Amino acid sequence: MAGTFYGIGVGPGDPELLTMKAVNTIRKVDVLIAPKTEKKDGSVAYNIAKPYLRDDVEIVYQVFPMVKHFEESTEAWEANMKEILGFLEAGKNVGFLTLGDAMFFSTYIYVFRLLEKKGVNIETIPGIPAFIAIGSHLGWPIVEGNDVLSIIPATADKETIEKVMSVSDNVVLMKVYKNFPEIADLLVENKMIDNAVMVSRVGMPDEERIDDILARKDQPVNYLSTVLARRTPEK
Amino acid sequence: MAGTFYGIGVGPGDPELLTMKAVNTIRKVDVLIAPKTEKKDGSVAYNIAKPYLRDDVEIVYQVFPMVKHFEESTEAWEANMKEILGFLEAGKNVGFLTLGDAMFFSTYIYVFRLLEKKGVNIETIPGIPAFIAIGSHLGWPIVEGNDVLSIIPATADKETIEKVMSVSDNVVLMKVYKNFPEIADLLVENKMIDNAVMVSRVGMPDEERIDDILARKDQPVNYLSTVLARRTPEK
Repeated sequence: MAGTFYGIGVGPGDPELLTMKAVNTIRKVDVLIAPKTEKKDGSVAYNIAKPYLRDDVEIVYQVFPMVKHFEESTEAWEANMKEILGFLEAGKNVGFLTLGDAMFFSTYIYVFRLLEKKGVNIETIPGIPAFIAIGSHLGWPIVEGNDVLSIIPATADKETIEKVMSVSDNVVLMKVYKNFPEIADLLVENKMIDNAVMVSRVGMPDEERIDDILARKDQPVNYLSTVLARRTPEK
Repeated sequence: MAGTFYGIGVGPGDPELLTMKAVNTIRKVDVLIAPKTEKKDGSVAYNIAKPYLRDDVEIVYQVFPMVKHFEESTEAWEANMKEILGFLEAGKNVGFLTLGDAMFFSTYIYVFRLLEKKGVNIETIPGIPAFIAIGSHLGWPIVEGNDVLSIIPATADKETIEKVMSVSDNVVLMKVYKNFPEIADLLVENKMIDNAVMVSRVGMPDEERIDDILARKDQPVNYLSTVLARRTPEK
């Protein structure tokens, strides 16, 4: 009988932010896939899940190169899928660790789609997204009452970002490492800069909180950085 | 020495979706506040946290009447704050259970602000929001790549909802119980109805999934219902 594939969101950094279900699943699977972006890197998701590993679980590192369009993806991906299918066909239950939430801006989504097409039995376990962890960690209410919140990857095209920021009083900006100076300017233009905060690597040992975003405008920004901001109400 | 106040997000329904930190906190506090909206109701957050309670923890139900503007709030709220402060001053650690995430559309935000003003030592523990749980539960990728996601309470004014929906390809609609027929119409107008799903009470025993939103348009909708939708791309 073929095994089950579990996508496991491990949250943004603090191992205590895994759900009970994520921990229970990590403890029951035979194989855990620890994804990384480049061969030389470690697996961020693996480091977060580490306190919960069974001694005899099989850890398999897989490299998922970043691709702009999923269609470009490649030999590396196919080899990874083949390896996962091999475990499942051998009757092993396989967990796939994924940073933050599993269905929210994750590589796991592509893995999920590929395996779903193959008729694999899949269960996905949610995780705490970074912006949610930041709100509690800083004592920063994210949204309340009738507030609208838009979650914007800073890698989207500029026109889209501008349009969405202009109609949303509350925003979360993700992946700000690429065009951070432009994002800082947009926060100013949208009267959000006075109620904005950036947190890098929330819940990790090297977490950083940046309150004065403008002062940091020309310095490099960590890959795992998120901005929370709200428009200053008109007087 | 005064106690610490813990805001504890318990997630949307399934007790397995509490984080380790939430469970550890529930197990260590002396008093747990179980909020409810009306005196006759039970506490939804309490029911979710129930499997983790210590035998000797003191459970205190508090009624937080729904108010349109927080400023209206009232004797009931003040009495609740006074009771919490009493516990803290007696050196007790107090947990406050809250549905979903603590800083995301919650009554807890107001409690947090009031106690913060009083100089109380507060720690907030995040929880899985309903829309995040729905994505994993249904195998429904929420957002990927450069997608923008807007989270809209259906109780916001119509003009705001229309503007935000028109510029966001992916939306989460919360609190849809009040004006569900209008929301269904907006999903049609925005070409999102073919990729939309509604889930009520995700993870609870009486959970319901509604795929054909239009067919349900004129029936009452549960208070805890969330719609996930995305725009059908132009051909």
